[in-house]
Order: sequence, then structure tokens, then C-alpha cells
Amino acid sequence: MHKKKEFESLKSLDTEITLLEQTAALLEWDEETQMPREGVQGRAEQLSLIRGYIYDKKTSSQIEDLSIALQQDDDTCSDVQKAMIRIYRREYEQTIKIPKQLVLDMSDAKSKGQVAWAQARKADDFSQFSSYLERIITLERAYADALGYEEHPYDALLDQYEQGMTTQLVTDVFKPLKKSVSTLLARIVSQPQVDDTFLYESYPKELQDKFGRMVLQNMGFDFSRAHMSESVHPFTTTVGPDDIRITTRYDEPSVSSPLFSTIHEGGHALYELGASNRITRGTVLAQGVSMSVHESQSRLWENIIGRSDEFWHYYYPQMQKIFPSQLADVSQEAFIRGINKVEPSMIRVNADEVSYNLHIILRFELEKALITGDLSVKDLPAAWNDTMKSLIGVVPNSDAEGVLQDVHWSAGLIGYFPTYVLGNLFGAQFYRTMCQQLPNSQDMIARGELQRVGSWLNHNIYQYGSIYPPQDLLMRVTGERLNSSYFITYLTEKYQNLYGLT
Amino acid sequence: MHKKKEFESLKSLDTEITLLEQTAALLEWDEETQMPREGVQGRAEQLSLIRGYIYDKKTSSQIEDLSIALQQDDDTCSDVQKAMIRIYRREYEQTIKIPKQLVLDMSDAKSKGQVAWAQARKADDFSQFSSYLERIITLERAYADALGYEEHPYDALLDQYEQGMTTQLVTDVFKPLKKSVSTLLARIVSQPQVDDTFLYESYPKELQDKFGRMVLQNMGFDFSRAHMSESVHPFTTTVGPDDIRITTRYDEPSVSSPLFSTIHEGGHALYELGASNRITRGTVLAQGVSMSVHESQSRLWENIIGRSDEFWHYYYPQMQKIFPSQLADVSQEAFIRGINKVEPSMIRVNADEVSYNLHIILRFELEKALITGDLSVKDLPAAWNDTMKSLIGVVPNSDAEGVLQDVHWSAGLIGYFPTYVLGNLFGAQFYRTMCQQLPNSQDMIARGELQRVGSWLNHNIYQYGSIYPPQDLLMRVTGERLNSSYFITYLTEKYQNLYGLT
Repeated sequence: MHKKKEFESLKSLDTEITLLEQTAALLEWDEETQMPREGVQGRAEQLSLIRGYIYDKKTSSQIEDLSIALQQDDDTCSDVQKAMIRIYRREYEQTIKIPKQLVLDMSDAKSKGQVAWAQARKADDFSQFSSYLERIITLERAYADALGYEEHPYDALLDQYEQGMTTQLVTDVFKPLKKSVSTLLARIVSQPQVDDTFLYESYPKELQDKFGRMVLQNMGFDFSRAHMSESVHPFTTTVGPDDIRITTRYDEPSVSSPLFSTIHEGGHALYELGASNRITRGTVLAQGVSMSVHESQSRLWENIIGRSDEFWHYYYPQMQKIFPSQLADVSQEAFIRGINKVEPSMIRVNADEVSYNLHIILRFELEKALITGDLSVKDLPAAWNDTMKSLIGVVPNSDAEGVLQDVHWSAGLIGYFPTYVLGNLFGAQFYRTMCQQLPNSQDMIARGELQRVGSWLNHNIYQYGSIYPPQDLLMRVTGERLNSSYFITYLTEKYQNLYGLT
Repeated sequence: MHKKKEFESLKSLDTEITLLEQTAALLEWDEETQMPREGVQGRAEQLSLIRGYIYDKKTSSQIEDLSIALQQDDDTCSDVQKAMIRIYRREYEQTIKIPKQLVLDMSDAKSKGQVAWAQARKADDFSQFSSYLERIITLERAYADALGYEEHPYDALLDQYEQGMTTQLVTDVFKPLKKSVSTLLARIVSQPQVDDTFLYESYPKELQDKFGRMVLQNMGFDFSRAHMSESVHPFTTTVGPDDIRITTRYDEPSVSSPLFSTIHEGGHALYELGASNRITRGTVLAQGVSMSVHESQSRLWENIIGRSDEFWHYYYPQMQKIFPSQLADVSQEAFIRGINKVEPSMIRVNADEVSYNLHIILRFELEKALITGDLSVKDLPAAWNDTMKSLIGVVPNSDAEGVLQDVHWSAGLIGYFPTYVLGNLFGAQFYRTMCQQLPNSQDMIARGELQRVGSWLNHNIYQYGSIYPPQDLLMRVTGERLNSSYFITYLTEKYQNLYGLT
């Protein structure tokens, strides 16, 4: 390549930033899993110092000079070099577009907003939060204006979490999804409900842990490079090139929540483990490329694989052996129906695989309208309840189980929700390609050979880390643009079958 | 004070250095307790980055300018201000005295030395390590010359770990100690040996952990500001102003090792917890002042308190209740004799409270002779064995259980060993003052009121953190210079009584 020296400078900055990001990840992981309660103030100061170093490096004049000197469309660059230039340029350009006062205002609005949200949710009273949310929405709009957009201010917000995603594209893929899922849900609701009470018996935590670790191991979760512990909210984080950590939680009423949470985070971890390899090790490229692609992997492992007939064909006899008193009298078929039970409900994080999509579509529609001004904050609770009624068929009895249930808006995360369902769409589209290229994949799963599925995913997706932007990666792997039909087909066939719909 | 602005600059540098030190402490703690095996390379890079930042800040021209501008004997300064100036000046001056090439050579010698030592120990062959040790000794002598000393080159090395300590002072306090302990040991060895086989039965780990945590809690180990987990080698570290961590290990043949290890680290932790307070919080002063004073606290809690009659008067009935099948038939007296069993042996880390002192005196004499050149490395194994024979009365059968047993010399830690026994001396001298000022302290211990003892220690020692240099602190608390007679009296009376010597 030309400008070898400049690229070496960028690489050395990247190494330092990556090490600092890993250090911050450890500080955060430890706070959620190990730190004594009173450590919180000291930890905030440590994190703020390290985050400050990262910010200073990412916005330094050195990065500016390198951004100007290095061109990502320089044909003498390798894909890896182009990607590194692309990422730092993008981050630098996005950062300098935001006036400092706006950054400070937003930081203030978020920290106050989260406190107010927590109190309002506790008091079950949206009015205690509404002025804070109004301020956040105003600032988010200012962010969109500062970042710039071609068609819709929401594009600028979306793009922060999912590079290249637009309001139009989300609308296009959500439209058929909304129609199909609503129809499917209505048909399911008209059927007799399945029994899943056996999932709510007492399952000893140590045995749940043992079973979860066995599944992770089979998935290719390498315990010499990865780690699982417990925290209140499960998450995945990358603490080093060979140190990927997930958490799970066992104090759930049902035995299925911790297990599927473990598999979900395990999917994120496999992506991160594969993304750190000979080519990308220790660079910004050694991580999943976007929220949606990440979520595609966690959901593919959790739902498409983990809740499938094939998976339980292999695992159910082992599960029964570990939990004989709880499951001896439950048939494999009944178990699979239980873990796939569909039931309209208020809370997104507890939603089943079908109605989950509608919870997200609701948030997408409402937050888009908040940003354009078509919906005012004061009308939000009523709009929430109306949309719940029309989309999911239930109406919250309170703000706490309705409009106040999620932390996202109070944390300034607007444009983030769609990535959860985009993950479903990406995941089904990837899976369909895998089934074409690896026609025996379902047999492999039924024989417990999860690592062979993992190898395909690693070869086609994980190993590229952040080298290709999300939609380019999708095109490279599946040969086509994002298309919701694969997920719709998967979901419809699965639940028609489970609920005996014709 | 004069130069308020300069002092504010020093404080702000200190805050940043302290936060970086805490971050490094977490990276290290995590490596020993949580990190997956393959994470080691990435962790080394993260630590090297953070340690590099610390080094750069401590040796920056800003520190140099502040060192010149700020005088620690400026009478307008508070004790806290003087201490902060003293510490940064000292560190800066020590650092700039060492030529860069010597730092690099030593770093290389240590990293190669530790590898060679581990291999030599495994092969049980000192000759594989001797040339590495020769190089380290040569470099240590060069360090001593660079740092400078008044009387003895070993002074310069000692002073690195224990500010103000000299070869002459150690010699003065070790001389009567050596004589008394040798005599005591010889008398004990002539007595019938006590039975401690009951300590080697099977004690479930969860119950050991429960008992250890109960003792810690009573000592004043505040679990909302402190944390205990497991690691191969027990240690204490400070991860934040309200986040002090200890580790213990349970896979020991006896039940007493993990418990006394927990109490020992608990003593270190109480010191660190007390050292971080309203006055010192978030500064370099919020930590124990020296190796010897730190060790005085861990040993005071472990041995003087934890292995005493009074302690077990309160705790033995509870211990018996938790471990009925192991201890129902063991009297309190027999238990106390068991945990205080004295038996000459080869390995320092397993040594009893009496012979431990002789293991250290041996190392002090040998390393002093290595530094002066009175002893050559090739003659070291023979000198080791001869001294073992004359001091402790046993001779190692191999290099591995003799001269190769400790990692210290291979890690360049010469001048460090004496702090372990100095800790015994400081501890007994502090304890004697406590018994004078708090005449009921033994009754308190016998009633399990360990926190009242902890309060005295906190009020007189812990709360000062690093404000006063170690020997000044000793003088403030006990009113006299270091004096080995208190430890000698304590040890002699205790073991005369236990072994029925007259």
C-alpha cells in the first residue's frame, strides 16, 4: 500500500485504544459480577479516566491527520486495512460533528433521565419522567441534525447502532413481518393453550449450571478462552483477545429462562471468539460488526437452534437424566411445546419468540413518531397502550408494565430497539444459507454436533469480525439484500406445526 | 501553605496515578482469580500499557518541577501534604538515579531468571539457575551503587521495600532474636511432639468458607467494602477506595492453613480498609505504609490473636458445632496445641511461628553475603544447607526443597525477606502497647469482640495510611524504637506454656 508509515501509526493507535477498551470492559464486567457494593463510586472514577483516554485518542489531531492522509477507497489497501481506516474515519467524523455543548447536555439529560425513569417506574407514574424524556427527545433530534441524514432524521440515529441502516429499509422489512406475525399470533391465541407448568418447578442451580456449561462446550464455547459467571442482567463482553465473558442468572421462576439466556449469550460469545483470530487479533476489527449481526447470532443459537426439535432430540434425554424428578413424566414433545409457548404479554424481555417482534415494531413506530414530532411525549402513554391493544391484543394496567418498562429511552438509546428484530431477520437469512450449503445441518444438531454448525458460522461470519460493514457481510454470505421472508417462513412453519394450525 | 497551586497540581497527578494503580490492581486480581487460561498474553499487554502510563506520570517533568518547587519540610504544610510530597519526591529521585540501561538489563534478567528458576526447581538442579542468579546479583549490586548508601550496599536494597531500614538495624534486632528462638526451638524439639492429625481430616470446603467469613466479619472485614475469593497463592489487593480484596485457598491438606491464611489476609485488608478514609481517600496515602508494617498486621491477626487461647475460647465451640464429626472428640486444649505445633522443616511457607524466624534470618545472612561478595553463587547451595543445619537442625535432601524453594531471588527481590520477620517484631511491639492502653483486650478477644481490638488498631495505625514513615509511626504509637524483646517475650512465654517448658 501507499502511505505505509501512516497506516503503521494508525495501527499503533488502534492497539492502544483496543487495550484501553478491554480494560474498560473488565472494569464494567467486574462491577456487575464481583465488586463489593460500596465500590461503585471508585469504579465510576476509574472508568471515567479510562473512557476519557479513549475519547481523547479517538478524537486526537493524530487521528484527524491520519483520516485525511489515508483513504479507505485506496485500491492498494487490503480489506483489513480499508476496514480499519473506515472505522476510525467514521468514528472521528461522527464525533466532530456533534458540538461539545450538545454532548454535555445529552450526558446530563441521560444521567438525570435514568434516575427519573427509575423513580417514575417505581412510583408507576409516567408524569414524573415525561419532562426528562422531552428533553432527551429534543436533544436526540439535535443529534440527528448534527450528524446529518438524507431522508429521515431517524436515519441518523439508527445509523449510530447499525451502520447503513435507514428508516425506509426498516419500514420495508418490518411491514410484511408485522402483517404475518400479527396473523400468526391471532391464530395461535385461538388455540388451546399449552401446559408449561413443569418448567416452574424447583431445579437446583448447580445442576442448571452444569447443563448450561455442557451445552456451551458443545457449541464451541472454549472455556480456556471464555468464561461464564452470574450477574443480575445477562451480558457478553470482550476483556481480551482470548478472554470473552458471558453472564447468566439463575434466580428465575422457570428453568428455561437461565438456559436460553446462557445459549443466547453463548451465541454472542462465539461471534467474539471467532472475530479474534490471526488476522484481526488485538485490533478494532476483532469484534462483531454491528448490533443486528450480533443479535442475529445470539438469536440464531437461542431460538432457531436452541428451541428446535433437533436440539432437544439430542439434549432432552440428558436433561431428563439430570432432572429426573422434574421431567420424568414430561414427554419430549410436551417439553418442546412448553419452551416455545406463545402468549401475548406486557413485558418485552419476557415475550415469546412470536410476539417479541411486535413489541419491537411498537417501539420503532413510537420512537420514530417522537423524533419527527408526530407524537408528543404527553401523548406517549396513550399511544403505547393503543398500539399494544392493536398489535398484541393486551393493554397494560399501569405505566410500569407499559411505557416505563425499558431503560433505553432514559439512557438516550433511540434508534437501538430495531436492531433486536433486525437480528431475527439477519439470523434467519444466514441460517437459510447455512442449510443450503450444509444440507445435513439439522441432522448434525440432532446428533449434538453443534460445533459443526459453529464452524460454518465461524468460517462465513465470525472470522471476519468487523472487516465488512453489516449489509456487505450479509450480501457476501447470503448473496442477497436483507429480506424478511426467511424469518417469516421460519416462524410461521415452526408455530403452525407446534400449535397444529393448518 | 505556600505554593497552593503547585500542591493542587501534585494532587491531581496523584489522583490519576491512584486510579491507574487501582485499575492495574484489578487486572492483576482478575488474572489470579477469574481470567480464562489463554487470556494471559492479552492481560500482559493491558498491564504493560497501564503500568507504562503510571511510570510516565511518576517520572514526568511535571513531577520533577513539583518536586523542586514543593519542600516536604515546609512548615506551612499539613502532615498529609508533607507525606504526599515525601512519597512522590522519593519515588522520583529513586527512579532517576537508575540508568535506563540498568532498568532494561534488570527487567531482562528477572524475566529470564524466573523461567530458569522454575525449570531448575522442577529439575531439582541449582546449576541450571546459577548463572542467572549471578547476573541478578551483579545487577542488584549495580542498583545499590546507583541508589547510593551510607554504610552497606544492602541498605539501598532494603530501603526499597522498607523505607529507613538499614542492615545495621536489622542485624541489631535479629541478633537477640536468633539466639532466643534457637534456644526455644531446641527446647521444644526435646519435648514429646503434639498430635495434630485431626487437622488433616476431611473438612468440607463450603463449611470452611462459612467459618472463615464469620471470623472475617467479626474482625471488622466489611463485606460491603471488601471481597474474598479463591486463588492459588493467597494475597490482598486494593482495587478501589471501597474495594479491598483478599483471596484464600482451600485445597490444602490441613483445615488450619486456609483459615489462618484467611485471617492473615484479613489483617492486611483491615489495614487497607482503615487506610482509605475521609482524609486519605483516593490518594497515594490510602494504603499501608510499608511491607513490615503491613506484615505486622497480618501476623498480629493471624498468630498473636488467631492462634491464641482467648480466640479459641470463643471460637472453638462454634468450630466444633460446624465440624462435629471431625472435632467432637478433640478438646479445646488439644486443638490449640495442634494449630501451634512446632516442628523444624525445610520449607519456609509451611514453617511454624517459631522456626519461621530462623528461615528468614538464614535468607538475610545469605543474601547480604551475596551482595557484598563474601559468598559466591556457586557456594550458595552448600552455604544454604550448612546454615539450615546449624539454625534449624535439618538439612534439605535436594535443591528444590532447599535453596530453590522461593521465587524471590529470581524475581530480583533482594532485601525483601527481612520484612517478614520485621513484621513479627513491629506486630508484637504494637500489640504490647495495645495491651497497655486497652487492658481488657484479651477479655474482648475471649468474648469474640474482635472489632474492639480492630478499632484500636484502626485508630492508632490504620487510619494514618502512609502519612508517617514506618519507624516514625512505630515511635508515635509505641513511644520507642524497634525492639525485638517484645516479640521474643511473647514467643517464649507462649511456647513455654504450650510445650510445658520450665
